[in-house]
Amino acid sequence: MAGSSFGTIFRITTWGESHGKALGVVVDGCPAGLPLCEEDIQKYLDRRKPGTSTITTQRKEDDLVEILSGVFEGRTTGTPISMMVRNTSQISGDYSEIASYYRPGHADYTFDEKYGFRDYRGGGRSSGRETIGRVAAGASAAKLLEQLGIKVRAYTLSIASIEADLSRFSEEARLTTPTAMPDYEANEKAVAYLEKARNNLDSVGGCMECLVEGLPAGIGDPVFEKLDANLAKAVMSIGAVKSVEIGDGSLVARRFGSENNDAFYCDEKGNVGKKTNHAGGILGGISDGSALTVRAYVKPTPSIYQTQQTINNRHENIDIQIKGRHDPIIVPRAVVVLESMTAITILDAMMVNMSARLDSLEHFYGK
Amino acid sequence: MAGSSFGTIFRITTWGESHGKALGVVVDGCPAGLPLCEEDIQKYLDRRKPGTSTITTQRKEDDLVEILSGVFEGRTTGTPISMMVRNTSQISGDYSEIASYYRPGHADYTFDEKYGFRDYRGGGRSSGRETIGRVAAGASAAKLLEQLGIKVRAYTLSIASIEADLSRFSEEARLTTPTAMPDYEANEKAVAYLEKARNNLDSVGGCMECLVEGLPAGIGDPVFEKLDANLAKAVMSIGAVKSVEIGDGSLVARRFGSENNDAFYCDEKGNVGKKTNHAGGILGGISDGSALTVRAYVKPTPSIYQTQQTINNRHENIDIQIKGRHDPIIVPRAVVVLESMTAITILDAMMVNMSARLDSLEHFYGK
Amino acid sequence: MAGSSFGTIFRITTWGESHGKALGVVVDGCPAGLPLCEEDIQKYLDRRKPGTSTITTQRKEDDLVEILSGVFEGRTTGTPISMMVRNTSQISGDYSEIASYYRPGHADYTFDEKYGFRDYRGGGRSSGRETIGRVAAGASAAKLLEQLGIKVRAYTLSIASIEADLSRFSEEARLTTPTAMPDYEANEKAVAYLEKARNNLDSVGGCMECLVEGLPAGIGDPVFEKLDANLAKAVMSIGAVKSVEIGDGSLVARRFGSENNDAFYCDEKGNVGKKTNHAGGILGGISDGSALTVRAYVKPTPSIYQTQQTINNRHENIDIQIKGRHDPIIVPRAVVVLESMTAITILDAMMVNMSARLDSLEHFYGK
Amino acid sequence: MAGSSFGTIFRITTWGESHGKALGVVVDGCPAGLPLCEEDIQKYLDRRKPGTSTITTQRKEDDLVEILSGVFEGRTTGTPISMMVRNTSQISGDYSEIASYYRPGHADYTFDEKYGFRDYRGGGRSSGRETIGRVAAGASAAKLLEQLGIKVRAYTLSIASIEADLSRFSEEARLTTPTAMPDYEANEKAVAYLEKARNNLDSVGGCMECLVEGLPAGIGDPVFEKLDANLAKAVMSIGAVKSVEIGDGSLVARRFGSENNDAFYCDEKGNVGKKTNHAGGILGGISDGSALTVRAYVKPTPSIYQTQQTINNRHENIDIQIKGRHDPIIVPRAVVVLESMTAITILDAMMVNMSARLDSLEHFYGK
Repeated sequence: MAGSSFGTIFRITTWGESHGKALGVVVDGCPAGLPLCEEDIQKYLDRRKPGTSTITTQRKEDDLVEILSGVFEGRTTGTPISMMVRNTSQISGDYSEIASYYRPGHADYTFDEKYGFRDYRGGGRSSGRETIGRVAAGASAAKLLEQLGIKVRAYTLSIASIEADLSRFSEEARLTTPTAMPDYEANEKAVAYLEKARNNLDSVGGCMECLVEGLPAGIGDPVFEKLDANLAKAVMSIGAVKSVEIGDGSLVARRFGSENNDAFYCDEKGNVGKKTNHAGGILGGISDGSALTVRAYVKPTPSIYQTQQTINNRHENIDIQIKGRHDPIIVPRAVVVLESMTAITILDAMMVNMSARLDSLEHFYGK
Repeated sequence: MAGSSFGTIFRITTWGESHGKALGVVVDGCPAGLPLCEEDIQKYLDRRKPGTSTITTQRKEDDLVEILSGVFEGRTTGTPISMMVRNTSQISGDYSEIASYYRPGHADYTFDEKYGFRDYRGGGRSSGRETIGRVAAGASAAKLLEQLGIKVRAYTLSIASIEADLSRFSEEARLTTPTAMPDYEANEKAVAYLEKARNNLDSVGGCMECLVEGLPAGIGDPVFEKLDANLAKAVMSIGAVKSVEIGDGSLVARRFGSENNDAFYCDEKGNVGKKTNHAGGILGGISDGSALTVRAYVKPTPSIYQTQQTINNRHENIDIQIKGRHDPIIVPRAVVVLESMTAITILDAMMVNMSARLDSLEHFYGK
Repeated sequence: MAGSSFGTIFRITTWGESHGKALGVVVDGCPAGLPLCEEDIQKYLDRRKPGTSTITTQRKEDDLVEILSGVFEGRTTGTPISMMVRNTSQISGDYSEIASYYRPGHADYTFDEKYGFRDYRGGGRSSGRETIGRVAAGASAAKLLEQLGIKVRAYTLSIASIEADLSRFSEEARLTTPTAMPDYEANEKAVAYLEKARNNLDSVGGCMECLVEGLPAGIGDPVFEKLDANLAKAVMSIGAVKSVEIGDGSLVARRFGSENNDAFYCDEKGNVGKKTNHAGGILGGISDGSALTVRAYVKPTPSIYQTQQTINNRHENIDIQIKGRHDPIIVPRAVVVLESMTAITILDAMMVNMSARLDSLEHFYGK
Repeated sequence: MAGSSFGTIFRITTWGESHGKALGVVVDGCPAGLPLCEEDIQKYLDRRKPGTSTITTQRKEDDLVEILSGVFEGRTTGTPISMMVRNTSQISGDYSEIASYYRPGHADYTFDEKYGFRDYRGGGRSSGRETIGRVAAGASAAKLLEQLGIKVRAYTLSIASIEADLSRFSEEARLTTPTAMPDYEANEKAVAYLEKARNNLDSVGGCMECLVEGLPAGIGDPVFEKLDANLAKAVMSIGAVKSVEIGDGSLVARRFGSENNDAFYCDEKGNVGKKTNHAGGILGGISDGSALTVRAYVKPTPSIYQTQQTINNRHENIDIQIKGRHDPIIVPRAVVVLESMTAITILDAMMVNMSARLDSLEHFYGK
C-alpha cells in the first residue's frame, strides 16, 4: 500500500532504504513564497547525525541534502520540493549475516511475513535512516511555522529513570548536549548511565517531548481529524515509539474532574487564558491557544551485543550475536524526528483550517 | 474540513449532533457477502447505552438503529451501508444556558474559535453521542473479523487507582458489569468509589484496553501507515483520551534492551512464537502474529456539578454550575468505542494488505 | 472499496439503492455559516424529478429531502450535513424478473462479476436514483458559490441531432422545458423527436453542457489535481456519460495552433481578458478568469422496450423484453446532476486554493 | 495543495521542473516481487524522447533514469520506488525572455495568478517534461500488468484530419513511426502535413487512443471510483488534452438505444462475450471483460513561431514571437504518457478490487 505519505494539503512522501543508493522526500503542497535553501534543511539533518558523541553509533553518516525541485530563486514555488541524501558510507558487507535470521525487536520477521522477502541490509526500509526524509520535510514545515510566529521544540525528557528538570531549561543544552536534554545536569547523569549500559552490551529507553508555542486557537478538526489524533499517528509512526501522550497524558486517568479541568479566565487586556493546562493545549481535538505538548515513550534500541535467542528463516531456533555499530539509545537522535512530525502535522492542520468558515471564503475571494 | 471519515478501503463517515434529529454512519467499502442485520448492530449499541446502573447518566437513550442501505436479502452488497439512530429523548431546553459560556474541559470554546458559533445543545457534534456512528460501524467490522477467526475485545482496565486483575478475567463480567471491568471484585470496588465521587459532585478518570487475538502476521504498512500509528489515531480520536499505548507502552522507556526484546522461537510443530510480548504484537508497524494490545487513558468527565470558574462568550469571568445528567466516568461506555475503532482499523489494514505481493495478484487473477 | 465519496476538503459521500429504504448523502467539510434549509435542497431535487412531462418516466417519485444534521438555527455549523430522501413509491415486484438475467447496457453483469450477487431491484446502487445524493450536495455547493458571485448553470445542448441555439438562450426555458434545453424552438423539435422514438419503443442520446461564470483565476492545482482533470472525473462518474470535453473539446484536434491559441489582452480599465475562449477557461489545469465550460455526451437509455438478446445468470442465451417505466432519454434529468458535480468540484478546488501562498497564511493568521 | 500524486493503493508522486536539477517520481504501493530494472523503465522513457525525427523538437534530451530505492536483488520490495532523471541539456538562457510575459495557450498567466510568481524556465512545472515521472511509473505498472496477461497499448489515431486505419494496424509502426501511428500510410501523410505546418510556423492537434486487452470483468468501483471516471481524470490531467472518450465516446449522443446497446452472448465453450463493444469495455463503471478503449483529443502545441498578441506581467498589451525549439505536435510524444496513465489507473483498480468480497478475504486469510 501507499504507506509512505503523510498529510492532506501539506503532504510528504518519503523513500529510500538504509543501504540503498539514496534516501529522500517529496514535499507536496508547500505554500509558494517561502525562502528555503539547503542550509535550512541541513541544520535539521545535522541534529539526527550520529558519531558526535560516545553515546551514539560510531558510524560516519554525512547526509548532505540536495534540493532537486520546487525552489526557484530562493523561494518555494508551490510545486513539489524533492530532497535527496545520497548514501555514501554504507557498507553492505557488514550486514550480510542477518539476511538469514530474525533479530528480536526488529521488523525482519514481519517484513518477510508480509512481502515474502526483504532488503536485509541495515534494516532496509525499517531502518532509522528512513527518518532523513521526515526531517528534511520537517525543516521546511518548521521554517514556515516560524514565519507565522509558531515555535516547535522537542527535547529528551528522560532516559531510563533520569529526568530532565524543565525548570532548568536551557535552549543551548537542548541543541548541543549529546542526549538532547535541555538540562545540563540531567544530561551528565544520563551520559554516565548510558556508558555503563554500553559496557554491559545493553541499550536503554527514554522519553521525549515536543512543545509548541504560539499556536492560535481553532486548529484541528472534530471527530477523526482531531489535532491530537493526527499527532498520535504522526508520533506513533516513528520507529520504537510505544506510547503517545497529549498534555498530562496517562496521569489524567487517576484524577478527579475537579482537579483535571482547566479553568478559563480573561485577563485585564481581554486575552483569554487557562489557569492550568492539563489538557496540553487541545480541547475536543482543536487547539485552544495554550501551549501544546506531546510526549513519546521510546523503547531501548533492539540491537544489543549480548547473545540473544531467535529463529532463522528456516524456522530453526538459534543463538545470535549482533555486530555492527548501534546507538545504545534511540531518543537523542529521534528528538528532531518528533519535532519534524509535529511541525508537519500542525502546518497541515493550519492550512486545512483556512476554509472552515464562509466568511473566510468571502474575504479571500473578495466578496 | 472533511474530518468525519476514517479508513482507506473500509471507510466510515459519521454524522449527527447530540440534540439534532438523528445520528448515523455510512460504512463504505464493506466486502460483499457478510450476513448482517440490525440485531448485530443493536447488540453493540446497547453496550454504550446509559441508564443501566447508578454510575451512568440517568438519561434515557433508546438508540434503536435502522439499516437504510447496503444490505440485501440479509447480506452486505459491497455498496455503502447507511445506519441511523433517531434522537428521541433529547430535550433542548436542558442545555439552553450553556449557549453563552465555555465549560472547562469541553470543546465549547474551541468550536466557537474555529467556526464562529456552535450547536450548543448537549455538546453538539463534540458530544459522546457522536460515537453511535463509530459503534454501529465497529459492529459490522467486528462481525467480519469474527468470520476470519479474529476476536477483538475491550474492557476497563482501571478506574482511578483500582485495577482489574486480568488473572481473574471473566468474559461475563466484561460484558455485564456496570464498569465493563472483566473482574467482579475490581468492579465492586470501583462502583463504590464512583458512588463516593458522585456524592462529592465530582468525576473520575480511568484506563481501558483492547485485546486482539487471532490476527495473522503481516498486517500494517511500513512508515506512515503502520498498524500502531493508525491505531493511535483511531484511539486518540475518541473524546477524552489523552494517552495511547501499544504493548507495554510507556514502561519500555525505563527498560534495558535485554529486558525488552521479545525472543522468537519455533515450537515442535513448527509454529513461530515469541517468549514474551512486550511489543504488543507489532514490530516495525506490522503485526507479528502475537496478541495485539492497545490501551487508552481517559480523563475524568469534564461535566461536574461543583461550582467552576470560566468565561462567557463576551469574555467576562464568571462562575458556573453545570446541570443536567452526566456520567461520573466516561470509561465504561467508551470501552465499546475502543473495541469498534480497533476493529475498523484492523479490518481496513487487512483489506489493504491483500495486494502487497505480486504472487497474490497472480493467484487472485488466475495467472 | 470506499468509492462513494468525492472531494478533498468539501467531501460528499452518497448512499442508497433504487428500491432500498432511503437514499442520501453526507456533506462533510462545508464551511460554517452558510444559510441553508430544506427548500434550498428541494428546489434542486425537483429538477431531477420524473413524471412532469410525456418524455420522462411516468413513475411518481416525490423525493422529499430531510436535513438530519449539520445545520443549526438556519446555518451550517461546519460539521457533516446529512440529508435523506425516503423511498416511498418503489414497488419491488416490478423488477423481480430481472434478477436472473443481464440487461444490455446496464451494470447487472458487471456487478455480479464483481460482488458475486447484486441488489437487482431497479438497478440497485447503479440506478439513476443514486444521483439524489449528488444533487442534494450540489445544491449546497451551488448556494455557497452564489454567495461568492459564481454562477453554475447546466442545460441540454443537443438531443440526437437537434441542437439548442445558444444565441436564443432563455433562462426560463432552461429551467422549465421538459428537455432542459435553454431554447424553446429546439425544445419543441426535440419533444416531437422523443415522442416518435418512444413510439418506436426506442431511446435517444444527447449532450449537456455546464457553464461557470464569475470564477476567479488561480483555481485548480498543477499535474494530477488539475481543475479539468477533477471535472472530467466528476462528470464521467455520472452514469451513461461516455465523453467529457472542456472548452472546444475534441474540435481542437483538427486545428492549427494559430487558430486555437487564445490571445490575452488588457482593457482600458486594466482588466485582463482573452479575445477568444477555445480553452474553456482553464490553462494548465488552473482557471484563467474566463467562463468555464464542460460538456458531457450521454448514451441513450439502455432500458428499451424492444426485444433484445442477452444471457441469464446460468449463462444461457435468451431474448428479453424489458418492462416497467423508463425515460426515453437520460439527459434532461441528468442536467442538474452535471450542474451539481461541477459546483462540488469547483467549490472544493476553491477551498484548497486558499493555502497556496505563504502570504495568504500570513494574512489569515495575522502575521 | 498536494496535487502531484495519483492513485489509491498503487500511488505515484511526480516532481521536477523543465529546467530544474532533475525530475522524477516516487511509486509507492507497488507489490513486492516484480522483477524490475532500469532498462524496463528506459524503454518507455525513450518513447517520449524528442529529436528522433524532423517532426519533434530538435532539443537533445537524454533522460537517463536511475532507480534509487525500492528494488533489491532485481525485484521490487513493496517499499517506495524512487526514480530520477537528471536534467543535463537544459539551457536556462533560452527562456529568460518569457519571464515577463504570458504566452497564449500556456499556463504562465494562471501560475502567476495562483502562486504570485513562477519558475518561468521552459514552462517550469507545467512543462511536458513533468511527464517523465508519469512514464517511469507507467513502465513499472505496465510490466506488472503484463505478468497478469493484460496488454496496454496506445497510439496516435489522427493528426489534424489524417486518420490511422486500424485495419492496417502494425505493432512495429506503432512503436517506430515518428507519429506513433500504427499505420505506415497514414504516418507518411501525417509527416508531410506536419512539415508543411512547421514551414508555416504553425502547429497541429490530434487524437490518441489506448487499447487494453485481457482485462478481467469486475474492475472499477461504483459511483465515484468508476474505472472510466478515474481514467477520465488520469487522461485529462495530461497537458493539452481537452476531451476524453470511453468506447464510442461522443458518437453515442446521436444514437438510438437499439443501436447502442451491446448484446451479451455465450459461446459454445461457455465464455461470455458481447456482440458489439460500443461501451468500450465498461458498464456502470466496472470492466465487463471486453477490450477497453479510451481516447484523448489534444490541442495543437501552443508554442508557435508566428507573431502573437498577449500581455506582459505589467498588464501591457504586447506582441511576442516565441523562440526556442518546440514540437509542431504534442501527440506522438504524449502517446506513451496516455499508455502510462492508463496502466497506472487499471493496476490500482485491480489491487483495490481484491478485497471486494468476503469470500476473497476468507480465502486469502485461510478461513
